[in-house]
Amino acid sequence: MKIKAGIVGATGYAGAELVRLLAAHPKAEIAAVSSVSFEGEKLSDVYPSYKFLNDMVCENSDAVIEKSDVIFAALPHGLSQELAAKCRAEKKSFIDLGADFRLESEEEYTEWYGGTFLDKKLHEQSAYGLPELFRDKIKGKRLIANPGCYTTCSPLAIAPAIANGLVETKGIICDCKSGVTGAGRKPTQGSHFPELNEGFHAYKVASHRHTPEIEQTLSKLAGKKVTVTFVPHLLPVNRGILATVYADIKEGITFERIRKTYENYYKDEFFIRLLDDGGCADIHNVRYSNFCDISIHYDSRANKLIACAAIDNMVKGAAGQAIQNMNIVFGIDENAGLVIVPPAF
Amino acid sequence: MKIKAGIVGATGYAGAELVRLLAAHPKAEIAAVSSVSFEGEKLSDVYPSYKFLNDMVCENSDAVIEKSDVIFAALPHGLSQELAAKCRAEKKSFIDLGADFRLESEEEYTEWYGGTFLDKKLHEQSAYGLPELFRDKIKGKRLIANPGCYTTCSPLAIAPAIANGLVETKGIICDCKSGVTGAGRKPTQGSHFPELNEGFHAYKVASHRHTPEIEQTLSKLAGKKVTVTFVPHLLPVNRGILATVYADIKEGITFERIRKTYENYYKDEFFIRLLDDGGCADIHNVRYSNFCDISIHYDSRANKLIACAAIDNMVKGAAGQAIQNMNIVFGIDENAGLVIVPPAF
Amino acid sequence: MKIKAGIVGATGYAGAELVRLLAAHPKAEIAAVSSVSFEGEKLSDVYPSYKFLNDMVCENSDAVIEKSDVIFAALPHGLSQELAAKCRAEKKSFIDLGADFRLESEEEYTEWYGGTFLDKKLHEQSAYGLPELFRDKIKGKRLIANPGCYTTCSPLAIAPAIANGLVETKGIICDCKSGVTGAGRKPTQGSHFPELNEGFHAYKVASHRHTPEIEQTLSKLAGKKVTVTFVPHLLPVNRGILATVYADIKEGITFERIRKTYENYYKDEFFIRLLDDGGCADIHNVRYSNFCDISIHYDSRANKLIACAAIDNMVKGAAGQAIQNMNIVFGIDENAGLVIVPPAF
Amino acid sequence: MKIKAGIVGATGYAGAELVRLLAAHPKAEIAAVSSVSFEGEKLSDVYPSYKFLNDMVCENSDAVIEKSDVIFAALPHGLSQELAAKCRAEKKSFIDLGADFRLESEEEYTEWYGGTFLDKKLHEQSAYGLPELFRDKIKGKRLIANPGCYTTCSPLAIAPAIANGLVETKGIICDCKSGVTGAGRKPTQGSHFPELNEGFHAYKVASHRHTPEIEQTLSKLAGKKVTVTFVPHLLPVNRGILATVYADIKEGITFERIRKTYENYYKDEFFIRLLDDGGCADIHNVRYSNFCDISIHYDSRANKLIACAAIDNMVKGAAGQAIQNMNIVFGIDENAGLVIVPPAF
Repeated sequence: MKIKAGIVGATGYAGAELVRLLAAHPKAEIAAVSSVSFEGEKLSDVYPSYKFLNDMVCENSDAVIEKSDVIFAALPHGLSQELAAKCRAEKKSFIDLGADFRLESEEEYTEWYGGTFLDKKLHEQSAYGLPELFRDKIKGKRLIANPGCYTTCSPLAIAPAIANGLVETKGIICDCKSGVTGAGRKPTQGSHFPELNEGFHAYKVASHRHTPEIEQTLSKLAGKKVTVTFVPHLLPVNRGILATVYADIKEGITFERIRKTYENYYKDEFFIRLLDDGGCADIHNVRYSNFCDISIHYDSRANKLIACAAIDNMVKGAAGQAIQNMNIVFGIDENAGLVIVPPAF
Repeated sequence: MKIKAGIVGATGYAGAELVRLLAAHPKAEIAAVSSVSFEGEKLSDVYPSYKFLNDMVCENSDAVIEKSDVIFAALPHGLSQELAAKCRAEKKSFIDLGADFRLESEEEYTEWYGGTFLDKKLHEQSAYGLPELFRDKIKGKRLIANPGCYTTCSPLAIAPAIANGLVETKGIICDCKSGVTGAGRKPTQGSHFPELNEGFHAYKVASHRHTPEIEQTLSKLAGKKVTVTFVPHLLPVNRGILATVYADIKEGITFERIRKTYENYYKDEFFIRLLDDGGCADIHNVRYSNFCDISIHYDSRANKLIACAAIDNMVKGAAGQAIQNMNIVFGIDENAGLVIVPPAF
Repeated sequence: MKIKAGIVGATGYAGAELVRLLAAHPKAEIAAVSSVSFEGEKLSDVYPSYKFLNDMVCENSDAVIEKSDVIFAALPHGLSQELAAKCRAEKKSFIDLGADFRLESEEEYTEWYGGTFLDKKLHEQSAYGLPELFRDKIKGKRLIANPGCYTTCSPLAIAPAIANGLVETKGIICDCKSGVTGAGRKPTQGSHFPELNEGFHAYKVASHRHTPEIEQTLSKLAGKKVTVTFVPHLLPVNRGILATVYADIKEGITFERIRKTYENYYKDEFFIRLLDDGGCADIHNVRYSNFCDISIHYDSRANKLIACAAIDNMVKGAAGQAIQNMNIVFGIDENAGLVIVPPAF
Repeated sequence: MKIKAGIVGATGYAGAELVRLLAAHPKAEIAAVSSVSFEGEKLSDVYPSYKFLNDMVCENSDAVIEKSDVIFAALPHGLSQELAAKCRAEKKSFIDLGADFRLESEEEYTEWYGGTFLDKKLHEQSAYGLPELFRDKIKGKRLIANPGCYTTCSPLAIAPAIANGLVETKGIICDCKSGVTGAGRKPTQGSHFPELNEGFHAYKVASHRHTPEIEQTLSKLAGKKVTVTFVPHLLPVNRGILATVYADIKEGITFERIRKTYENYYKDEFFIRLLDDGGCADIHNVRYSNFCDISIHYDSRANKLIACAAIDNMVKGAAGQAIQNMNIVFGIDENAGLVIVPPAF
């Protein structure tokens, strides 16, 4: 019997991507979808590419919880805590694609998002769903905080070096470039085609909410507080994030050792593709898939490690990783439904 | 046991797309691939998006024939006839994505392509692989001429009206717009990013080789010679063709009757999605899939039928349709491996 | 002394393009700009590319009329008639980039736009500002109806053949493709980057408001009523329209004669560039300029003329042509401020 | 009388852009153009956007030198030294858009480019043409080394802070993103539309030839050796470079002081537009113009300065700056021909 998956917020971009990916999952099926804006309307009226393939009618979140074994919530920040509590009461698994459960420190949550933890126990029972780094913590959990897009690729780029103490934990820079789907479905002046097309700029420089989340992940790996400088930029493409991460190599550490460490660290990770020397991670090569391509480079003149990580922000950076987490939670093959060959063009 | 599929010309765009799609086919597997330009090299060195997912080494065409039950040939025009003969000798099925077997008239082939029919019997044993229109002719055949991209969407747009005698067979216009993958992998000045990007133009106006093929298909449906005006244009997008087809409605025929005829004609076709009144077929909604979206429109002032058909030129216009033909030839579910939800963005 | 030009609706796309082009005009200067949405704000706050080059503050339309010799109105349809009356009262020239004065028939205006002619005399005193076709009617006028974008390139493509009776006036098809700036500055779902990018579709098929305007122009040239089938499509590019126009060549007319007629018809037109045989008009080559590139093609099999015309929809299709009209109205060099080399990339 | 300008290598992208910009220059005119690949052909056959506006026939470099007062060389690296010697012999001014005269150290030139200085005196007589930083050195010179694209925007982004000792000279990172025209006119697999479109990646990580040139400029400003980490990336857009530069702020220096320093440093520079707090430099806003938009940002958590500089790589990064240098060399208004309002879309 297939896992019954429900999607709350199915008409947003992350929700819509869950619909697309779950349609090809061998062991799960979509039981119900909800949308506040489009309740009572067909999903395929919002996304005509789904016509005849998923013509489900959007319901409300209560209906989704009732019909599902696992509930994915793809909601604006701040709306997931209450939903998570309901799911726990109904003994349903809950995978949150929003930010409500990502930060362990309530203080940081309040500082960056302005809210509070409604039920501290819920937070304690949750796990941060970045499987390649914290798989053991995810197993057995029913409440998963799915990482954000920047917060998936930035740590993955540098994790092996941080976890093994090969680079300094001070002065790390994450210069990230994201496709525009990361900003969601709602049209804005900044995503209006004539103003974004042929343009490129940074935004929320050193003030983006993903900053503390990246630091939380790296600090856990380092075993001490890591601070990063994080600058996101907006690319005129639909999908993909490239994180270019800079770190000072510790004295006495060779680049050869770093490469070996990366190879060893990721050797069993299906979704991480470490490129050979000379390769450069390209968002073009991971589109529509759950892969994270990583290339590492050495600046011998400044003795810096430069690591590039490319993901599809809507898959490994959102819906795909959420399904990966579902697979872990339900104890099935972690790659189920996610073995997708990225298109060559 | 899975069907063993071989691809000759696997490093061209149509070949590479076959690799991507066959990887997800439940009842077929890739047995061997060949490439003249990259013999001895890994497919994933040419297309890094395939890394770790298909690292097969390109062999030569003889090796492909030997190892395969069915051979897909994605070659420049003129190179398939000899290969088809070899496959027949070896009793292997052969699906040709090139033009060598598409035209039934040798005279027309010579006029438009400059070659001759090397073995007339081979041509007589072949079938033209546009399943929605000629499914019965495909069943039981071992040699399939897979239609070109323009020659799939243009006829599908107007077929119901032609086959049922609702429009005049004279004066039909096919104004088509194609993404640039249709021109293949080889870089040219015209596909150089800065010169194609933000541009749009017609090419080979009323002189493109797909003209006689479109006419051949429509003439069969009409039961008499149909001549079309065909003008292709180049879109600054990767994938997709939109055909906008204009035809004069015969006296006494209402648009309502035309709509009913379309609904009936395509009611059992999984890959045809006829849009409701008011909808307009968009290449955005069929990308990476084998679907053909069709919208029909009425110009009451000029009493014309305007039909728009959108396909992914590399899937329904090439590799996907080839697999659909393989499924028919091998008697398995026609949709096997092709039930793909097109991404919403 | 320079002509004082005022722009009502300066923060819309056509208004903003007027600002850009007038900045380089040797004999005109911008006296004032207005905007309902941004009154009191700087133009360069709305368009940061204008920073330090035009930091004028948006006023209201009365202030613009008072300070200007000529008023350009770039307003939504229906808002220009009152403004035109005010300008006449103040003896100011008025160039309307909207549709209010384009149609000579009030009946057609009511049918397609839903309004009425508030002051019939005003309409009689206006001229339709397509200089290449109606230059003599523009001279000496103070009220100019600047044509729409589709209604500039479609008639220019076919005018020589129509005016000289070389093609049939029945069954003409205008298959047009426009960049997205034609839809204006306001963000919508359809112009949201992820949904337009990599997409292409027709819209308002055979029902777009520019239809009667194209017919009005062609009917004048033909000396009898011409009906056209007009289908616009949306291109994922910022700027440019390509009109592909199809017409049946009259019996006994050779293509050579058509070419000679085109050459003769446009031989003194600076902004028309008739391409040599084999060339295809490309929107890429006219971007940011007032040029209209035209290529003509012969379908010998169907005996049709196919004419392609490419313009920048915001320049020759809006602001540039408006300035060309201003130059004519003020009796200065028609090309003043408009001799711009289109960028090669 | 106008300055007679000649262009050697006029059919490359930088040469073609010189043609476009010089056409609008009030005090200069193009006297001759040359091209090795297209000698004897019309420029407008290579770039159809120039049709009727510049139909000059490409000659050879000797003809260009003979007919011109100033020679612009837009050649592959290594071909300018001989040409410069000829120009000196003929007492013509020479502005080199290549790299041959950019580096003052022959040792560095040999290390990064593999050549030698053919005539050391020539190098001593040359000036590095980045006017905003070295205007006084350019005046009176006849041989100008026009900076590369990355080497214009990266130093301009950080110059005020470096020149005034506000940031550390160690650990500076230049994370740059360039449009594809930077790679020139020759089609390659990497610039083939389907493979670049919807892609983004770094290249030549920490090994690009512009590295020593950036360091040379910053070292001069700092008065001591500065080393930078330079990583270029390729954007799927035609034009523009964004440099995001990171530097550690020295102890005791406030961000307010940095902002004041920037304001003061650039207060008389027409082509530098320092954005207000909250603004982010965007390549969209400088396209087709000679402007450099700069925004500065403070990372209070890591005490870093982050400066973004946006230029059009083909204008301020090549042809426009070359004309700016010509204006200085000839003692005319430095902005002549370069007061261009960047298009809003």
